[in-house]
Amino acid sequence: MSVTTAKGFRAAGVTAGLKASGTSDLALVLNDGPLKHAAAVFTSNRVAAAPVYWSRQVLNDGRVDAVLLNSGGANACTGPEGFQNTHASAEKVAGLLGLSATDVAVCSTGLIGEQLPMEKLLPGIEAAAAALTDDGGPAAAAAIMTTDTVAKEAVFAGAGYSIGGMAKGAGMLAPGLATMLVVISTDAVVEPEGLDTALRDAVRVSFNRADSDGCMSTNDTVLLLASGASGSYPDLAEFTAGLAALCQELARALIGDAEGASHDIAITAVNAASEHDAELAARAVARSNLFKTAIFGNDANWGRVLSAVGTTEAIFESDQLNVTINGVQVCRNGMIGDSRDLVDLTPRQVNVEIDLRAGDARATILTNDLTHEYVEENSAYSS
Amino acid sequence: MSVTTAKGFRAAGVTAGLKASGTSDLALVLNDGPLKHAAAVFTSNRVAAAPVYWSRQVLNDGRVDAVLLNSGGANACTGPEGFQNTHASAEKVAGLLGLSATDVAVCSTGLIGEQLPMEKLLPGIEAAAAALTDDGGPAAAAAIMTTDTVAKEAVFAGAGYSIGGMAKGAGMLAPGLATMLVVISTDAVVEPEGLDTALRDAVRVSFNRADSDGCMSTNDTVLLLASGASGSYPDLAEFTAGLAALCQELARALIGDAEGASHDIAITAVNAASEHDAELAARAVARSNLFKTAIFGNDANWGRVLSAVGTTEAIFESDQLNVTINGVQVCRNGMIGDSRDLVDLTPRQVNVEIDLRAGDARATILTNDLTHEYVEENSAYSS
Repeated sequence: MSVTTAKGFRAAGVTAGLKASGTSDLALVLNDGPLKHAAAVFTSNRVAAAPVYWSRQVLNDGRVDAVLLNSGGANACTGPEGFQNTHASAEKVAGLLGLSATDVAVCSTGLIGEQLPMEKLLPGIEAAAAALTDDGGPAAAAAIMTTDTVAKEAVFAGAGYSIGGMAKGAGMLAPGLATMLVVISTDAVVEPEGLDTALRDAVRVSFNRADSDGCMSTNDTVLLLASGASGSYPDLAEFTAGLAALCQELARALIGDAEGASHDIAITAVNAASEHDAELAARAVARSNLFKTAIFGNDANWGRVLSAVGTTEAIFESDQLNVTINGVQVCRNGMIGDSRDLVDLTPRQVNVEIDLRAGDARATILTNDLTHEYVEENSAYSS
Repeated sequence: MSVTTAKGFRAAGVTAGLKASGTSDLALVLNDGPLKHAAAVFTSNRVAAAPVYWSRQVLNDGRVDAVLLNSGGANACTGPEGFQNTHASAEKVAGLLGLSATDVAVCSTGLIGEQLPMEKLLPGIEAAAAALTDDGGPAAAAAIMTTDTVAKEAVFAGAGYSIGGMAKGAGMLAPGLATMLVVISTDAVVEPEGLDTALRDAVRVSFNRADSDGCMSTNDTVLLLASGASGSYPDLAEFTAGLAALCQELARALIGDAEGASHDIAITAVNAASEHDAELAARAVARSNLFKTAIFGNDANWGRVLSAVGTTEAIFESDQLNVTINGVQVCRNGMIGDSRDLVDLTPRQVNVEIDLRAGDARATILTNDLTHEYVEENSAYSS
């Protein structure tokens, strides 16, 4: 049910004809209230898409009544005409549902540098508005897929309230988000300021630690909408923890569906001097093409782990580093440890632990291996 | 002739049996003087190999009499035993040639985390010392090859003096250098301080702008030796320009031989507010796996160029950016320009120009596309 699990929300997913594949490509999520509170995190890419510019304005007052999402076109690098198209789409939604356009957020995903076919999009919006139902979450989650092989949904059951979310994204994931669209709804009673704090905390430890190929998109958006329909006032720390768990589940689903991957890799730096250091070290390994190709080749090449960690400014001594891959400590005190031949890399899940021996902080970065299929998908598919 | 082009130098390349392939794997370069001046740039990776620790000490007094280089083993992450092996190798060279071990630099390249087979290396050093000749440059250049498909040599003819160099490296190139060994010799009369200044300036605009896959090795070393045998005292600016031209020629040869590449890509940021900004923007594109796979697929995907530039802090306005690929301005004012279908990406050389329209500085980063062969070589070959 995902985005329609929480009370007060309706959603729809329809086919407007934006995608050559002919599958559904337009989603609409409506908050029926009574509250219309919202928070969002957008791409930090300075080349941002028209819908990102639009939605940033919509979020200024912490109110969102509806979200329109399309696949089949990013509407990025499309200039004033692209922005006008986003504006016209929001106006269309507003007109059909009796809302103000300035309360309608818009998200787009697909190829950069092409105008959206408005002659298909506007009729699609009419169809989506007509199809809104309180069990439309799965249809909406399906309509935002691009190279995704599965729809991504998650729910969290709080004490007297619910949180539900949907996400799209496959590959191109990076810190600061990337070609990733996420809409999360809750019926808890939380003010916009609380939503904003909770969302930033949750995104920091989830989507921002999913790093498939280090590329950051022009369109990434995470939206959190609160209807207040449950009447429950959650403790903010408890709400944040639930939201973070839900975001981590969606992040794992995104990494698990990354383009052409054959291994899901969790890189954890432990005993770091700070969480920042742990993240730096783990992310450097996640960004190493040499490490990622080695894992594809089922090679527990710890030298490439150390090479990557060595490029960071994290606090460590190189002759103190330990590296464990799938339970085998292949590097001990910066030197040869147990035989790399003992490491079984045939399972899809790979766990790499880097012991920095400099403190007690830790962080995990999720990534994938670099495979022939990654090269194939990204050389053959324009996006 | 390369490293033996300048007067006062002898070199050799022999087979010690370190490489399973049975090809030559040990090189020796000797400076016969009269001067023994030297400068060097080493990897900035904090996980550095034993020979890097050793050679940094050797260079402290600006004097190097000989350089021993081996392929077939990096001697990195090998602890005290690895350092003792490097020391013993330098002592062996010194004993055979009547030098002090503290004037013998050592370079190694190959797999990380394995001890060198000293029972093969020490006899190999004897063979190398016996084989030293004043036309041994090409043999030395061949002996340092690993996955290189061709030996890399270059010479520069100055006014009354020469500069010659050899390099090994294929893929794994990155700023701050990476699995790259370079030895350059000159018979010009230049003091160690002048050599150091000239080498740092030359490396900054050459090897540090060759960025094949963003990975930085534990062993990278660039050595510059001066014998003074020509008796010529060059103008330092002129000498630096010649040295930079030679380093750029070697850097192009390294990128041209990168593992599994099918395109050589020169990314130039022009009209930047500063050279630093130009380098930032061009390097962000060179680091984008999505851009690099698009070029492999002969797709002039300028959206991926803009996405990468947008992640930097360079000064620009996103609606002012122009991108030209192989002469076709595919992006104009941050929007769709001429048709990407006009771009011919069948030649091996690809030129990408990003116009930041923020000043008059420029910088070029050299890189490659990301191909199936890259994945194959780096998943199948442990290094």
